[in-house]
Amino acid sequence: MIYGYDPRTGEPVGAGVPETDSAGVDLVVSAAHAAGRAWRATPAEDRARALEAAADALDAHVDELWQLADQETALGETRLRGEVARTTGQLRFFAQVIRDGGYVDAIIDHADPPRPDVRRMKHPLPGVVAVFAASNFPFAFSVAGGDTASALAAGCAVVVKAHPGHPGTSERVAKLVREALPYPDLLGLVHGMQAGADLVKHPSVVAAGFTGSVAGGKAIQRLIDERETPIPFYGELGSVNPVVVLPSADAQQVATGFAASLTMGVGQFCTNPGLLFVPGGDDELRKALAEAVANTTGGPMLAERIREGYLGGLERLGQLELLAEGKAAEGAWSVTPKVFTTDLATFAAKLPAIGEECFGPASIVVTYRDVGDLPEVLERLEGSLTATVHAADPAEAEPLVDVLRRKAGRLIWNGWPTGVAVTWAMHHGGPWPATTSTTTSVGATAIDRWLEPTAYQDWPEALLPDELKDDNPLGIPRRVDGVLGR
Amino acid sequence: MIYGYDPRTGEPVGAGVPETDSAGVDLVVSAAHAAGRAWRATPAEDRARALEAAADALDAHVDELWQLADQETALGETRLRGEVARTTGQLRFFAQVIRDGGYVDAIIDHADPPRPDVRRMKHPLPGVVAVFAASNFPFAFSVAGGDTASALAAGCAVVVKAHPGHPGTSERVAKLVREALPYPDLLGLVHGMQAGADLVKHPSVVAAGFTGSVAGGKAIQRLIDERETPIPFYGELGSVNPVVVLPSADAQQVATGFAASLTMGVGQFCTNPGLLFVPGGDDELRKALAEAVANTTGGPMLAERIREGYLGGLERLGQLELLAEGKAAEGAWSVTPKVFTTDLATFAAKLPAIGEECFGPASIVVTYRDVGDLPEVLERLEGSLTATVHAADPAEAEPLVDVLRRKAGRLIWNGWPTGVAVTWAMHHGGPWPATTSTTTSVGATAIDRWLEPTAYQDWPEALLPDELKDDNPLGIPRRVDGVLGR
Repeated sequence: MIYGYDPRTGEPVGAGVPETDSAGVDLVVSAAHAAGRAWRATPAEDRARALEAAADALDAHVDELWQLADQETALGETRLRGEVARTTGQLRFFAQVIRDGGYVDAIIDHADPPRPDVRRMKHPLPGVVAVFAASNFPFAFSVAGGDTASALAAGCAVVVKAHPGHPGTSERVAKLVREALPYPDLLGLVHGMQAGADLVKHPSVVAAGFTGSVAGGKAIQRLIDERETPIPFYGELGSVNPVVVLPSADAQQVATGFAASLTMGVGQFCTNPGLLFVPGGDDELRKALAEAVANTTGGPMLAERIREGYLGGLERLGQLELLAEGKAAEGAWSVTPKVFTTDLATFAAKLPAIGEECFGPASIVVTYRDVGDLPEVLERLEGSLTATVHAADPAEAEPLVDVLRRKAGRLIWNGWPTGVAVTWAMHHGGPWPATTSTTTSVGATAIDRWLEPTAYQDWPEALLPDELKDDNPLGIPRRVDGVLGR
Repeated sequence: MIYGYDPRTGEPVGAGVPETDSAGVDLVVSAAHAAGRAWRATPAEDRARALEAAADALDAHVDELWQLADQETALGETRLRGEVARTTGQLRFFAQVIRDGGYVDAIIDHADPPRPDVRRMKHPLPGVVAVFAASNFPFAFSVAGGDTASALAAGCAVVVKAHPGHPGTSERVAKLVREALPYPDLLGLVHGMQAGADLVKHPSVVAAGFTGSVAGGKAIQRLIDERETPIPFYGELGSVNPVVVLPSADAQQVATGFAASLTMGVGQFCTNPGLLFVPGGDDELRKALAEAVANTTGGPMLAERIREGYLGGLERLGQLELLAEGKAAEGAWSVTPKVFTTDLATFAAKLPAIGEECFGPASIVVTYRDVGDLPEVLERLEGSLTATVHAADPAEAEPLVDVLRRKAGRLIWNGWPTGVAVTWAMHHGGPWPATTSTTTSVGATAIDRWLEPTAYQDWPEALLPDELKDDNPLGIPRRVDGVLGR
C-alpha cells in the first residue's frame, strides 16, 4: 500500500492505495489504448468540450480537493486553490488551442508538375502517453496537469504514474476527470515504482512525460532504452535558475522579491532562484538581502525524502559563508530557508558541483566585481529553465544576453522565475539537465510533444482529413503554397 | 587511408583520403564551433545569400562533380546531374524558408496583468551539428545534403562524417561549399569510423543527423548515451515501404511503375517499395508484374558491403517463391533485381523477420483474398517512411487509411515512393525504425531539428531579437495575442 503523509506531523493520512502490479498496469494501459482509438478520431471541437467538462468537474470540487491535497502536501489553502484554478485554466486553454487548429501545422503544396500535390499535418501519436506526476504540484503537474492536458488535447490517451507524495489527491482527481470524459479509460492511473517501470516498457505506450529529479529521469531513460521500439522521453529534471543583479538594479526591490521567490512553497519549485549574482561592492544590497531572508519563515517540505535531499544540499552549500537564514517553522518535515554567499572566483573554482540544484529554499549569493567577469562563469553553468536579469538599464545587460539565452529556456527581466504563465508563447524548458529535449511542458506548444506529422501525396480529397481539404472546412491557419494564412 | 572504389570494377579510384584522428576531429569541430558563433548572429537574409552562393558553386562544377561521383558510385550521369540539381535546389529552398521567417515560430503574448509579457521564438542550437552522410545519395544526403542545408539555414555550424563510399566526392563538395561560405569553417569534414565516434562525443556537438542502417543508428545512439550531456539524435534507419494494390487499380500501370521504382538506382533508396500487396485472384496483375520485372536489368551496387547485405537479404527472401527476376548486369558489384511472392497468411506467419528491409532491388508480392484481411497484417509491420495505395476508387481504400497512417510518415496515392519532393509540406520520416523521432529530414520543417525555443518575459524591446519586436521589422509570420498573422 502507498500512503500519503501529512508533512506537518509526519503521520500517514487516508486509507492508502494499493500498488498497481504488472497485470494491473497492462489492464489500465490496454483500456486507455482502446479508448484512445475512439478519442483520436474525435473532432477537435468535441475534444475541446471534453477538456472543458473536466475543468468544470475539478472546479466544482475545489473545496474538497484543496483540503485533500493540503493533508498530503501542507501547501495551504491559498496556494492549492490557486493551483486548482491554474490546472483547470490550463485544460480550458488547451481547448482553445485545439479549436484554433494551428497546432496541427497544416501545410498544403498544390501540385506543380512534375512535383505531386503534397499536404502535411500533425496527428496524435497512436497510443498511450505515460505521464509521471511531480511531487511539488499535486494538481498542475500531476494527474490532470500540463502533460495530461496537452496529451488529451492532442488526441492521445494518458496513463499517469501517480506521485507517492499525494496518492489520495491523485485518485480523487483521476475519478473526477474520468467521469467528465466521453471515454473514462482515456485517463488511467497507476501507483508504485514498479508500475512506473512497467508503464514505460508497455508496447502501447508511445511517449513519456516526466517531472522530477535528474536521477529519476536517467532511470526512466534507461528503461526506455531497453524497449524494442524506442519512444520519446520528455523529462524536466533539474534547474538552478541563475539571477543576475546588475549595478543599476533597485536593491530593495531585488531583496524583497528574491526572498519571496526563494521561499514560496518552501522553495519547492523547479524555477526556484538558486543562484544570485550581485555586484560585490554593493553592501546595501547584501544587507537588504540578509534582512529579507531573515524575515522569511520555513515550512514543512512535501516528503521526508525531499527534506533529506534538502539537508544534504545544505551540507554541500555549507562550505560557503552563511549570509542569512529564515525563521524555523513548526512541523515534522519543516526546514529553514538558508542563503549562502561567496565571491565569483571561489564559486567558479567549485564548479560544477557547487552549481547543482539544491531543491528547496536555499540559494547562493555570488558577488562579482565587474559585469565583464560574468559571461565566462555563466558559460560554465548547467542548463536551466530560466535565467533572470535585474537592471534599470537594458544596455548594462547586453554582454550577458547571448550566454544567458544559451543556458536557459526563459529569460526574465526585473521579475522572478517562480510562476509560469500558461500562454501561447510560454516556453518551460531548457538545456540539459533542465529538460531532455527542446520542447516545453507549459504553454500552447507543449502539445507538440504528442504529435507526429504525416504527408499525403496526391491523396484523394475524399480521404483527406478536414484539416487538409481544399476549402478548409475547419477554418484553421494553414500554409498554402508557401504562404501562411487562413 | 580511405579509398573510393569503382563499383563497376571493384578497384580503388582516386588518391584516397586520410582518416581523421581524434586530434583532427577536435580541430575541425572547434573551428566549426568558432565559426558558428558568428554565423548564428548573422541575419537570415545574409545566411540565405550564403546558401545560394554554395548552391551556385556546386552548380558551376556539376560537370566535374557528376564524373567524380560516378567513379565512386556508378550511379550514372543522368541520376547524378539530377542529384546535384536537387541538392542545389534544396540549398536555395532553405534560403527561401529562412527569408520567410515562419521557421522561428515567433509568438507574442502582450502583458495581461498580472500575466507578464511573454514572447517566444526559436534560435539555432548553440553548437555544432554532426551529420553522418549516406551511401546512396553522394550529393543530396551527403556533405551538402538535406541535413547540412537545413542546419546551416538554421544558423548552426556543421561537421560531416563522410561516407566511405565516396570520399573524393565528399572532399570536393566540401571544398566548394567552404569557399562559398562567409566562414569556411562552418562546414567541416571528417573521415573514418573512429572519427564519427569522436564527433558525436565531442562536447561542442549539440545534435546529430544520420541516414543509414538500423545497426549503425543504434551504435551512434549508444555513443550518445555515453555523453555527459545527451544530445538529440535524428536517424533515418530503415524502411520497407508497403504498397497496397486494390482491386480497382490499373494492373498494367502498377506493374510498370513498380518495376521502375524497384530498380531505380539499383534499388538503393530508403523509399524502395519492398512489399507489394495485390489481390490474390488477379492473375493478370501477377503476370504483368512478372513481365515488368523480367524486363529490368540489374547494376552495380554502391559498395561491396552493401552488395553482401543485399545477397544476405535475398537468402532470407529465398524461402518464398521467386516470382521474377531481372537481367544480370556487367560489373564487379552488380546484382540482379528479384521479386518473391507468397500469400498473406504465409507472410503474416513469418513476421516480423520477413517484413524487414532488404536494401536493394528486391521485393515481396503478397497476395490477399479480401481487402478486409489487410489491416490486421499491416498493423504488424514495422514503421516505414512511406505507404502507398493504388486504386481507382478512394472508397475502396477507406478501411486502410488509419493503419497506413500509423505505420508510415508519407501516404502516396497511385504513385511510387521513390522520389521525395523538397517542399514546405514534405514529411520524410516515420515510426521506428524508419526514423528515431517525429521529425523529417526532407522539406521545410527539417530545419526544426536544429532549433530550440526561448521565451522572453517582460524583456526590454532594445534587447529583443528583431523577430520579436513589436513593429515586426522583418515582416515575418507571427502569432500575436493568439492570432496567427503577419
